[in-house]
Amino acid sequence: MVRFTQTISRRTALLGLGSTGFASLMPAVAFGQADPLPAWTDGAAKTAILSFVTRVTTAGSPEFVRPSERIAVFDNDGTLWAEQPAYFQALFILDRLKAMAPDHPEWKDKEPFASVLKGDLHAVVAGGTKVILELVAATHAGMTVDAFDRTVRAWLQTARHPKTAKPYTQMVYQPMLELLAFFRNQGFKTFIVSGGGIEFMRAFAEEVYGVPPEQVIGSSGKLQFELRDGVPVIVKLPDINFIDDKEAKPVGIQQHIGRRPIAAFGNSDGDLAMLQWTAAGPGARLPVYIHHTDNVREWAYDRNSKIGRLDKGLDEAAAKRWTIVSMKDDWKRIFPFEP
Amino acid sequence: MVRFTQTISRRTALLGLGSTGFASLMPAVAFGQADPLPAWTDGAAKTAILSFVTRVTTAGSPEFVRPSERIAVFDNDGTLWAEQPAYFQALFILDRLKAMAPDHPEWKDKEPFASVLKGDLHAVVAGGTKVILELVAATHAGMTVDAFDRTVRAWLQTARHPKTAKPYTQMVYQPMLELLAFFRNQGFKTFIVSGGGIEFMRAFAEEVYGVPPEQVIGSSGKLQFELRDGVPVIVKLPDINFIDDKEAKPVGIQQHIGRRPIAAFGNSDGDLAMLQWTAAGPGARLPVYIHHTDNVREWAYDRNSKIGRLDKGLDEAAAKRWTIVSMKDDWKRIFPFEP
Repeated sequence: MVRFTQTISRRTALLGLGSTGFASLMPAVAFGQADPLPAWTDGAAKTAILSFVTRVTTAGSPEFVRPSERIAVFDNDGTLWAEQPAYFQALFILDRLKAMAPDHPEWKDKEPFASVLKGDLHAVVAGGTKVILELVAATHAGMTVDAFDRTVRAWLQTARHPKTAKPYTQMVYQPMLELLAFFRNQGFKTFIVSGGGIEFMRAFAEEVYGVPPEQVIGSSGKLQFELRDGVPVIVKLPDINFIDDKEAKPVGIQQHIGRRPIAAFGNSDGDLAMLQWTAAGPGARLPVYIHHTDNVREWAYDRNSKIGRLDKGLDEAAAKRWTIVSMKDDWKRIFPFEP
Repeated sequence: MVRFTQTISRRTALLGLGSTGFASLMPAVAFGQADPLPAWTDGAAKTAILSFVTRVTTAGSPEFVRPSERIAVFDNDGTLWAEQPAYFQALFILDRLKAMAPDHPEWKDKEPFASVLKGDLHAVVAGGTKVILELVAATHAGMTVDAFDRTVRAWLQTARHPKTAKPYTQMVYQPMLELLAFFRNQGFKTFIVSGGGIEFMRAFAEEVYGVPPEQVIGSSGKLQFELRDGVPVIVKLPDINFIDDKEAKPVGIQQHIGRRPIAAFGNSDGDLAMLQWTAAGPGARLPVYIHHTDNVREWAYDRNSKIGRLDKGLDEAAAKRWTIVSMKDDWKRIFPFEP
């Protein structure tokens, strides 16, 4: 990580901020006198974020951006909440499969169901978003979107993370919660752009992140409107509609937002195209990678991980001098439940 | 129209508003003392709209809706702007085809291009959204979304409506502009949900309607992210992605918004499913049809029109006592350029 923070420090120096850049920026961005990002250490990453926000929100600044164009996008798994030992949605599917298995004896001899029911998550992890969506289809086709929403909410109430025994909605990153609120306070619209299922994320995004359903972009299955006994319902179909990963992320952004973001946060190679798209626009830009470097408080993984692999992205971020947040060094606190 | 307005008056009476309902509601909904809907006559439609807004925005009301759930959706063609003598986007395509024809000699012998180039709009009108999107694909595949946006904006600057000679962005309905602003002032988020092309509408929706790109839902082609000489671009592909019409409108709403609207405005059978979906939710609901009844100031058409046919919807609105706005009777002014 040394080489990246050096790179960023050099850039900070070029901007004339020097090593005390953070302190000198505070008056311009603070609301009241409080530090808007208390869980962040006063390092290069925090300085880069505060500098960017100051520049795009200061009237008369050459880099000023009008509020309607202040679009910030955030990956979810590994960026806003944890993704180990498996994507949380995969654990949800596992629980759904187990609950439904008595009515589906055929699953015992059919992959990937058989492996998953034996508790073998490798099949899911190795298959990535595609296998997850196949399992979603198998378990939820025919369900109305309202019923699916209730199922996810009920699961989030009772399910616990296998390592921390906390509800999954507490496995979110405190510094990122602060960042979401800070951006919104500065006139940004915050969007989630994730490979996770769009309906799955919408079940908690507003309550947990303050991001309303219409600002959640994700993978999705096809839907169908129908009248059931004269009552209109929207039903989940087994077919995949959109997988919001890699090069599809800028496409999902264009389809849903129709405007290029000026800030983007991700943690894996799956976010690289989204960061490239964000970075390549005119004016001030803030492409940020969250780097999982803390194997004590969270998990440490990057180039060789099956979940959230960050390899090409790490090289490109270094080459292009994007901000890289080291969870170990840049975050005082990772989860809200820490003391 | 008599039978529908009678139906509405009966409903108004049931709500205890009586014939002076409008006046008695004014203090609760007005901001300042001004009438928020000056282009609307003080009739049953205006009363129903103001009553609805009062009920869902008054704290402590049994029908109060928190701001984040105040979602209002609006069809575009025939609901927010005119759609005669053809969908304006079809006229845009016609101009594009003409401009590109010298480079495409093969179009002279190929339908629907040949008919369109001869100025025969019937092929487009009869084919509806699907043919329009095919023509869009033929004329715009390979173009970046940025270039397409510039093309639409340039066309809107110079093109004129064949009957009024006004720019198309002035062929919008003054009462609906007031309604959009009024809803937003009352804490609603306003969305466009239209069969029109999503990128086409986004080129003017923010400036003309105050609806930002991320709140525009429409038909779309597939997109692709690619690096051109190392520069990230999003390119329009020839394949259709989504046709936002009829039963697909509630699907588009679910995909983009993820929340059921409480108010919906349309003008054709293509909007019926959207109005059904909106009307069937719990609590106060406002499904509204705009009925084209004014053959002097605008156009009069419904059950037998090829454009914007309103047949099944008219019957269902009567049966379910939805609000029907008669453009002739309920609107003092139709276009902003009228005296």
